[in-house]
Amino acid sequence: MKLFLFFLTSIFTLSSFGQNKDSLVISKFSYDILNNGKAYDNLRYLCKEVGHRISGSPQAQKAVEASARMLREAGADTVYLQPVIVPYWVRGDKEQGTIHFGNQKRDLNVLALGMSVGTPASGINAEVIEVKNFDELKALGADKVKGKIVFFNYPMRPELIQGGYGDAVTYRGSGPVEAAKLGAVGVMIRSVTHALDDNPHTGATRYDSAVTKIPAMACSTKDAEWLSALLKKEKQVKMFMKMNCKHMPDVLSYNVIGELRGTEKPGEIITVGGHLDSWDIGEGAHDDGSGCMQSIEVIRAIKAAGIKPKRTIRAVMFMNEENGLRGGNAYADSAIAKKEHHIFAIESDAGGFGVQTLGISGTPEQEQYLRQWTPLFRPYGVYEMPGGGGGADIGPLRKLGTVLSGVNPGTQRYFDLHHAPNDVFEAVNKRELELGALAMTAITYLVSEYGLPEKK
Amino acid sequence: MKLFLFFLTSIFTLSSFGQNKDSLVISKFSYDILNNGKAYDNLRYLCKEVGHRISGSPQAQKAVEASARMLREAGADTVYLQPVIVPYWVRGDKEQGTIHFGNQKRDLNVLALGMSVGTPASGINAEVIEVKNFDELKALGADKVKGKIVFFNYPMRPELIQGGYGDAVTYRGSGPVEAAKLGAVGVMIRSVTHALDDNPHTGATRYDSAVTKIPAMACSTKDAEWLSALLKKEKQVKMFMKMNCKHMPDVLSYNVIGELRGTEKPGEIITVGGHLDSWDIGEGAHDDGSGCMQSIEVIRAIKAAGIKPKRTIRAVMFMNEENGLRGGNAYADSAIAKKEHHIFAIESDAGGFGVQTLGISGTPEQEQYLRQWTPLFRPYGVYEMPGGGGGADIGPLRKLGTVLSGVNPGTQRYFDLHHAPNDVFEAVNKRELELGALAMTAITYLVSEYGLPEKK
Repeated sequence: MKLFLFFLTSIFTLSSFGQNKDSLVISKFSYDILNNGKAYDNLRYLCKEVGHRISGSPQAQKAVEASARMLREAGADTVYLQPVIVPYWVRGDKEQGTIHFGNQKRDLNVLALGMSVGTPASGINAEVIEVKNFDELKALGADKVKGKIVFFNYPMRPELIQGGYGDAVTYRGSGPVEAAKLGAVGVMIRSVTHALDDNPHTGATRYDSAVTKIPAMACSTKDAEWLSALLKKEKQVKMFMKMNCKHMPDVLSYNVIGELRGTEKPGEIITVGGHLDSWDIGEGAHDDGSGCMQSIEVIRAIKAAGIKPKRTIRAVMFMNEENGLRGGNAYADSAIAKKEHHIFAIESDAGGFGVQTLGISGTPEQEQYLRQWTPLFRPYGVYEMPGGGGGADIGPLRKLGTVLSGVNPGTQRYFDLHHAPNDVFEAVNKRELELGALAMTAITYLVSEYGLPEKK
Repeated sequence: MKLFLFFLTSIFTLSSFGQNKDSLVISKFSYDILNNGKAYDNLRYLCKEVGHRISGSPQAQKAVEASARMLREAGADTVYLQPVIVPYWVRGDKEQGTIHFGNQKRDLNVLALGMSVGTPASGINAEVIEVKNFDELKALGADKVKGKIVFFNYPMRPELIQGGYGDAVTYRGSGPVEAAKLGAVGVMIRSVTHALDDNPHTGATRYDSAVTKIPAMACSTKDAEWLSALLKKEKQVKMFMKMNCKHMPDVLSYNVIGELRGTEKPGEIITVGGHLDSWDIGEGAHDDGSGCMQSIEVIRAIKAAGIKPKRTIRAVMFMNEENGLRGGNAYADSAIAKKEHHIFAIESDAGGFGVQTLGISGTPEQEQYLRQWTPLFRPYGVYEMPGGGGGADIGPLRKLGTVLSGVNPGTQRYFDLHHAPNDVFEAVNKRELELGALAMTAITYLVSEYGLPEKK
């Protein structure tokens, strides 16, 4: 019994000592990031000097160059570009969605969905019919859908605390295919957001090669409410839809990578990243300029603290998350080809709102190992490391058995500006952005210092 | 062994059953508040139809009437007004703070500090000198301070994650007394905010009856930076300060109270509250319209769920938190006089940003009892119940041994708009406001259902 107690005490003491040293290092990171951080100024540059930057666009190339410079300034040992062939979709002229009823008309606030085909040059004129969901669409059947524009008016469910986006976004992704199967000529969805306002929200839609591709747009939630009310009163409502968005040939682009090479185990790689591309409206400030600038800040803060990491740390600006994920796939494919050993990857792609929890995905033993560090994060407002974490761009690393983590700000505000014109620099709070960078720096440092148990 | 396991299993089952039932009730609250909540619309009314509402003002009286109506509409059994005599301080004409240097001048963005005396009608003209803190002020001594305007340029320290306000606000509270002791004729402080912008932030200052009362104002942080840079270049910088704020005679005002009477133990009282008064600028949206509207929502949600609480629940809109705390004191004094038994009180006065933790202050046994419920809150983004919680208005209940709790949103944004012109309805996110109301409803319900261990 006494020996057992002694044993326990030793573990406790060692562990306390370790945590105490680490808490001092993290406190140093915190002081530095909150007082001398560069993430906010870098984000301002990305938003205001580069602007929105859809894959393949000249702005995306400008963002590649700017973030490579920022990584060099942050003190990365090596900065390099990893080639990625990306799709290039262009919106073209301002879209038009006009409702005609009686002898009146009203222009809606609309945006073409990303990757949508355009309308014929003269636009489409058709009756618009509302459905709340796919069940209602199917109940109508081809008879009532053929030749019409289908208006999917499915709201983000208020009672879903975090899952509302995943629940509602299926209409953006699959609405056009499902409507086209029944002969619809166009689709308009209610924007996927909790906010009731005039901002339309874009985002990628998908086609099926076996189904006719029909044009698809999103209207603002206020317009969706208005149109829904109108459709209850008016017998027949027509819509004029015009968009000349189109797919251009693929373009050579890049993931941007900045590295701090490990001093003891350089072959064990830790990735911290966000995606550099954005939709072609607003400034891509929260989605995902924030995640990129936070990842660069991780390099800067570790370097500024004079720490030479034991394992290799890579900040990666992934290209093409929004409409292809080619950057994330290219990064994992390269890792497989080079037989790299990726032990841990964390992504910030839920907005620059700080961090409430760090989601983690590994074996039970690996997750338990990470969770021992939770007390080090509490002073900075990070309370838990729940199971289930990652990000779209680092997802392909799962094939390599990498432990994945995702930043969860837990905020209710992200979808108010996600893929919308109001996702601009001014919507980002400096300290929230910095505290997110701090949490990412702390977990990156801890894994670089102590490694992770191997998968068994 | 088997018996022991059986015993453990029974406890587990009973406890799971209890928590399961409670989690269903809380889920029902959540659905209702997020889908049918009234807090946001009520807040719009308070901000847009009533506006800012300093104690003693006609708007404060309008807020009393409006919130009494809202409590009736929420379904309170009884709604009544508790008289409170409050101070009435009026700002008067727009303040003037003008810097003269060389043959140039510049008007600063300033606000008189709350409760400040005015300047003489012709204003004050004096040299302005900068100090970073009280130590620098004392080092200068009476020789260099006499006849001057002291500019306290103490920034909120970025590295303090939550404590920056408490650290910096001492210059707002005590700056005028400390400067006057050395013969200063006026004070200007740097606004207490992390934000670097043009908004001046007011807030109460204090005088000492033994020290000359000198006028005090706050300038925006951008102006503070500008003036500080100027003072490094220019030999002599003069300032013209003019404000005609003044104290009016005390006014009869009210705490507004809405009650759901307990069905089993009506003598055990639970208070949920915020403060109804605000500073006389902006709209007092986060400070503290949010806390009041959330408290009314607690009544509405419990009533709407068809729950008849076992213990008495009171939503209290406290009057005069900002410049006197007379409402909080009157409420506790009345409780003592009537020998009421107040078992629990929770206040929301840190902005309508949702809740990350609920701070709690009681005996270790009471705190442990409350903490058993933490898992019920996690699905709604409330992660912990750390020790140390309460609020200014419910603080006086400590004399009665009441367990106190405070809503901690943990956000970094509160002080960007606290006591400033930008604390307006538009700065409040509907869902964050509602999730705060939900956490308050859940804890109020649990305490009303199960009570709390008595203090030993």
